[in-house]
Amino acid sequence: MVDDTKWQDVLTKLKRGITPRNVAVVGAARHNEFRWIQSHLPFHNNNGKVFHVNLNEDEWPGAEELGVQNFHRLVDIEEPIDYVTISVPRKFVPLVVQDCIEKGVSLVHIYTAGFEESGEEEGIALDRQISSMARQSGTLIMGPNCMGLFNPAVGIRQSPNQYYGETGNFGYISQSGSMASAIAVEANSHGIKMTNCISMGNGMILDLPDYIEYFLDDQNTKVVGMYIEGLRDPDRFFKVLKKASESKPMLVWKVGLTEDSARATEAHTGTSFIREDVWHKLLARCGAIGINSQDEMVDTVKAISLLPEPTGYNVGLYAVTGGHSTDMANVFSKNGFKIPALTESSYEELRSFYNMIGGNYVNPIQQAPPEHFERIAQILSKDGNIDIVALEMQAQQLVKDKDFLKDRVRILKEARDVSNKPVVACIADGYPRMDQKDLEFITKSFADENIVAFYSFRSAAEALKNLADYYVINRFVG
Amino acid sequence: MVDDTKWQDVLTKLKRGITPRNVAVVGAARHNEFRWIQSHLPFHNNNGKVFHVNLNEDEWPGAEELGVQNFHRLVDIEEPIDYVTISVPRKFVPLVVQDCIEKGVSLVHIYTAGFEESGEEEGIALDRQISSMARQSGTLIMGPNCMGLFNPAVGIRQSPNQYYGETGNFGYISQSGSMASAIAVEANSHGIKMTNCISMGNGMILDLPDYIEYFLDDQNTKVVGMYIEGLRDPDRFFKVLKKASESKPMLVWKVGLTEDSARATEAHTGTSFIREDVWHKLLARCGAIGINSQDEMVDTVKAISLLPEPTGYNVGLYAVTGGHSTDMANVFSKNGFKIPALTESSYEELRSFYNMIGGNYVNPIQQAPPEHFERIAQILSKDGNIDIVALEMQAQQLVKDKDFLKDRVRILKEARDVSNKPVVACIADGYPRMDQKDLEFITKSFADENIVAFYSFRSAAEALKNLADYYVINRFVG
Repeated sequence: MVDDTKWQDVLTKLKRGITPRNVAVVGAARHNEFRWIQSHLPFHNNNGKVFHVNLNEDEWPGAEELGVQNFHRLVDIEEPIDYVTISVPRKFVPLVVQDCIEKGVSLVHIYTAGFEESGEEEGIALDRQISSMARQSGTLIMGPNCMGLFNPAVGIRQSPNQYYGETGNFGYISQSGSMASAIAVEANSHGIKMTNCISMGNGMILDLPDYIEYFLDDQNTKVVGMYIEGLRDPDRFFKVLKKASESKPMLVWKVGLTEDSARATEAHTGTSFIREDVWHKLLARCGAIGINSQDEMVDTVKAISLLPEPTGYNVGLYAVTGGHSTDMANVFSKNGFKIPALTESSYEELRSFYNMIGGNYVNPIQQAPPEHFERIAQILSKDGNIDIVALEMQAQQLVKDKDFLKDRVRILKEARDVSNKPVVACIADGYPRMDQKDLEFITKSFADENIVAFYSFRSAAEALKNLADYYVINRFVG
Repeated sequence: MVDDTKWQDVLTKLKRGITPRNVAVVGAARHNEFRWIQSHLPFHNNNGKVFHVNLNEDEWPGAEELGVQNFHRLVDIEEPIDYVTISVPRKFVPLVVQDCIEKGVSLVHIYTAGFEESGEEEGIALDRQISSMARQSGTLIMGPNCMGLFNPAVGIRQSPNQYYGETGNFGYISQSGSMASAIAVEANSHGIKMTNCISMGNGMILDLPDYIEYFLDDQNTKVVGMYIEGLRDPDRFFKVLKKASESKPMLVWKVGLTEDSARATEAHTGTSFIREDVWHKLLARCGAIGINSQDEMVDTVKAISLLPEPTGYNVGLYAVTGGHSTDMANVFSKNGFKIPALTESSYEELRSFYNMIGGNYVNPIQQAPPEHFERIAQILSKDGNIDIVALEMQAQQLVKDKDFLKDRVRILKEARDVSNKPVVACIADGYPRMDQKDLEFITKSFADENIVAFYSFRSAAEALKNLADYYVINRFVG
């Protein structure tokens, strides 16, 4: 929605807002248990200041206890304010935006909902009023109807359960607030940290392409993901997406690709339906990667941030049981991989130590005693017929025995290093099912050494397919 | 296979070969019933000269009767020769190529097979010998193992059943000889004329990307199609395809997309397997149009050369029976089209003359008396809810009554002109089935007025989908 000719000014202002000097929360504090103040508190404690703004002094006491100063009006604050979270009833939002303009705020996050998306006359009128004020003054608005910014490095958050004081290389844009907070938490549990996660809501002023441009410019962001319900400006979206895809992997998850589901997104965003196969052709034309679920998003980000470029689709597999080996072969094959015979010299080496009773070693190799795992990982990683190695391992064993886990991490690291192939761990979750925190502990232990561990070989096959397709297509059409 | 830095020289030489001053056929004449002399005879009769070259004078008499001069050696001919068809046993091909080099021939078509593709030692050795001679001298080779050039404008042909003295705007490249001759004949029966059709065979010197570059440069060629078995140089192919797709619609039909069928093409061309979904992503990335059969190729060329850009996927349909209307709706819908309600004013007009007994007029409109056809065509074409109009008509009636056919052509022309929407005829072939020549007569009658008539609404839906997708994707990602 931003005028292209002014883009450099907008970008400067947006950066200022995302890494602000000081922050203000305008509106209800006690009523919502100080959620926005709590969210931004790490910023207050470690970086600039957070101020609470409320005409009603009854709302003040709790904020002061959190160490935050209260003001009646934004303009009463002397210090510069670059990021504001507005959490007041919709009819008061124009007044607050007016104060933001007067105060020279760079980026205004409007949490309040009930504007254009409500379809109500009052909401639409307020929407027009606010957007016209913002446009005339060049004020940037994130939202309305959203969770705003997550900038973990400086401690500005969308909810108090998000982490802070750490940063990564994954940038995210979401048209849904819940999807934004969720992926920040989920990606973290896989060891994937974010640069910024933006819950953009209605996109009244700053729209999807603006945030893509921001991430394209941001040197720390290496991979960009997005959750889309609909497009306000498909023309600009695809042009920006194409440009961005030339520099960074762009992972695009869109809902509303069937007519029934499109009614849900249309009700929300008023965007029009694009047929699923045309959507995927458009993504392919742009060089972007299509994603179908949050799990696939996180797994693909892991694969694409941590794994080297695979040379082809030939996988070498190790499975913990005979049953798993057939299922694993089936799943990888259905995802377009080949599971070729190994080289003769690999078979010779396997033959030298492998006990044929209760296991076999075609490909997948299955069910070896633990002491053979390292040699198998090495053989697969060095084999000339193999482009990608996926090694299954028992979750229970990894959790029970920390040294065992540490050793498995070392083995995968060394296997990867001898070959520079993608070498990944697939966690075999037996029955009874593992606790989630144990699975997270395992994947994070691997992630700490830049090794990818997937929760199952199903997730592995899906993410590795996205990885291989991405590189193959880029290799042919640069 | 051609060195990029010399591309301008190659292009100049290739153009000279494709529009030669004189032509020679080297080899068997009587043995193959003078097929190559017969093929190039229109050139001899209307443009330059064709000469027959054969060491064996026993082969000469028939050629002389066709008005063609015989020579022992190519170098014995005084006039310049720009295109040569070589039809001698493989072991003699190097000698003839040597003569071509000495004579300064621009483009050498090697009909003879049994080289690299044979897998035989002798064939491979001869292949190396010839390609090294050609590379050193800068001689261009079309083939070997192919039907060579079809240039109808000048009368150089791949077989004596191809037309000549006419030209069009459709360029074609085929890795199969039979597919090349076939599409030239089939497209013609739909009123689609070719600029050139190139049967390229093994692609020893000139490869697929070279011919794409040629068509990209050729101003008369507006649409390019190709039949591919495998790629020798996928990297260069996709880069050239992407560049070409920016200027002209590129229609790409590839076989060998399943592993079983890939074995057939691998046996032939030694090219490697690309997974079907990756192939389609690559085409989409390039902006090319994927095609699955020869019928779809011809129908899509018709749609894309003759129809205006559709504004969307809303079709207005007319069916000759109630049964056809439900099948037609189903087929268009499955191809991603919407069949929306018409505007209220269209329904008002329909109500004013439509007899509800035995038909109805929602959308599709069905089964009206012939005298209402014109008003229905006008209503659909002017309707604000409709982007594309497809009107079914009885083949039998069109064939029986020439005036009726003429009138239907006029009606479609006028309907198109009031709206500038794609307006197409779908021929309803009843039982007993129509003769092929009658169907061809109908489609050509429409094509003469630049109206597209499809053999069925199934073909219509398929080709119109390709048309609409092409424009929609280009609209968003320029």
